[in-house]
Amino acid sequence: MSATVFKPAFGAFAERVRSSFARQGAMRLIGAQIAEVAPGYCAIELKPRPEVSQQHGYVHAGIVSAIVDSAGGYAGFTLFPEQSSVLTVEFKLNLLAPASGDRLIAEGFVIKPGRTLAITRGEVHAEQRGKRTLVALMQQTLMVMRGKTDA
Amino acid sequence: MSATVFKPAFGAFAERVRSSFARQGAMRLIGAQIAEVAPGYCAIELKPRPEVSQQHGYVHAGIVSAIVDSAGGYAGFTLFPEQSSVLTVEFKLNLLAPASGDRLIAEGFVIKPGRTLAITRGEVHAEQRGKRTLVALMQQTLMVMRGKTDA
Amino acid sequence: MSATVFKPAFGAFAERVRSSFARQGAMRLIGAQIAEVAPGYCAIELKPRPEVSQQHGYVHAGIVSAIVDSAGGYAGFTLFPEQSSVLTVEFKLNLLAPASGDRLIAEGFVIKPGRTLAITRGEVHAEQRGKRTLVALMQQTLMVMRGKTDA
Amino acid sequence: MSATVFKPAFGAFAERVRSSFARQGAMRLIGAQIAEVAPGYCAIELKPRPEVSQQHGYVHAGIVSAIVDSAGGYAGFTLFPEQSSVLTVEFKLNLLAPASGDRLIAEGFVIKPGRTLAITRGEVHAEQRGKRTLVALMQQTLMVMRGKTDA
Repeated sequence: MSATVFKPAFGAFAERVRSSFARQGAMRLIGAQIAEVAPGYCAIELKPRPEVSQQHGYVHAGIVSAIVDSAGGYAGFTLFPEQSSVLTVEFKLNLLAPASGDRLIAEGFVIKPGRTLAITRGEVHAEQRGKRTLVALMQQTLMVMRGKTDA
Repeated sequence: MSATVFKPAFGAFAERVRSSFARQGAMRLIGAQIAEVAPGYCAIELKPRPEVSQQHGYVHAGIVSAIVDSAGGYAGFTLFPEQSSVLTVEFKLNLLAPASGDRLIAEGFVIKPGRTLAITRGEVHAEQRGKRTLVALMQQTLMVMRGKTDA
Repeated sequence: MSATVFKPAFGAFAERVRSSFARQGAMRLIGAQIAEVAPGYCAIELKPRPEVSQQHGYVHAGIVSAIVDSAGGYAGFTLFPEQSSVLTVEFKLNLLAPASGDRLIAEGFVIKPGRTLAITRGEVHAEQRGKRTLVALMQQTLMVMRGKTDA
Repeated sequence: MSATVFKPAFGAFAERVRSSFARQGAMRLIGAQIAEVAPGYCAIELKPRPEVSQQHGYVHAGIVSAIVDSAGGYAGFTLFPEQSSVLTVEFKLNLLAPASGDRLIAEGFVIKPGRTLAITRGEVHAEQRGKRTLVALMQQTLMVMRGKTDA
């Protein structure tokens, strides 16, 4: 799929994402951070460690889904109008490989922005000494909540 | 769908689930606890609080997915053979209502156990002063990892 | 999940479903028929035969998805307002067993009706000499298209 | 996601796909044809017409899912060992725009091949006078059925 160039409806789209993310207690608890925000795109990173593990020591599928759900949601939010907030309607996640390494990076990409719904894809890669492995693949539906500010 | 009666392959199925859950750092971090284990069934509870919130103060969709993924995975694991562990292949989650209240309860139900794969459904309810609201609905595919112990 | 009692917004909800179904060329082509319509519920049946098969002679997963997508969509449509039509936003389907036998019956159940979106679950059973086997499980998101008549 | 170069395990991978497809009665019934087969890739085309429509005259979501399920399944099958067949475990489909035009083209791409499971992505584009529109997006899990020939 060729990359689409998106135009945000609102100049401060990146600041809005960063300030919304900063209000997510769950992202702070698990130690996730925003790595990049661009129109129709958001990347969130997480350092694997025992506090976010499942029983075999890998990062828990639910934590992987938390960062990629946020990455997809904020990718969509970059394109939403000024007076709006974002809601995840649903997502589907395939787990492809154990999530471990030096860093996980979850990326959300807008596939189709819309007036009421937006569709995104997500990928989570694990990085280990410069090598990247795809560990999860997501497909997500978002809702544009018009007239509701995020804060 | 009528409830199916499942017979575990292994007497200590509930102890195995509880000891596996106890090794999940992520469940401890978010404050989730096992509420019930039965053949083909597992329930996990979580108290909503700011540390697990998204930007509007509700429980983060990723945290909701973490507890229902674990509930589904352990529901499946109750029926797996003695020398095996459980892996989530994929899941799909619809978010139906804001997750808040006194308690969230995530339930996993085995729909179809199998030699290699098992299919589960999940529901997350929010409880507020005795009233239950369905906040999320999941459908999940698990893999039976034979010959690999969980610990 | 306990059954919910739904109240249609519109008296002729079943006639509207039947007349919409009659306009679906695809359902006629594959030989599917409506078996039942009730508030928040729709059942569609199909006779397995070589014309709808995959390479091993079972009913093709895409044909199974066609009847359960329609069953879910029309289950939702029974509850939509008079001036509206229904659109499938997305669905997820697990295939649990080979689809064959005397009859397939696809059932759609509304889980959550809403102003803009509705969430349904679907099941497909294969019947063979009175025995029913669950062959597919679906979770679906629908959109209420207000102000657009179905015809 | 950068394109991955896949190496088939079996020289006659394309012939095997074409002969399997020829045995799918459902693809013949709906008028679908294979457009291309390559390692880790398969494209299937369909001409929109009233026989495959839903109630508004667009191609039925179930027919869209039938061609993209087959495209994903055969993309995976190109990489499977000689003595094996392919089974769809599950898929999730988002419908992004009405499916109409001169031609629908469903493409399946292997994301991760594996010993037991393979993960694919799918896209369906509608072509109208040389313009392509993305109408559906799929994520799919396949199972490698070892020791079972396809025919």
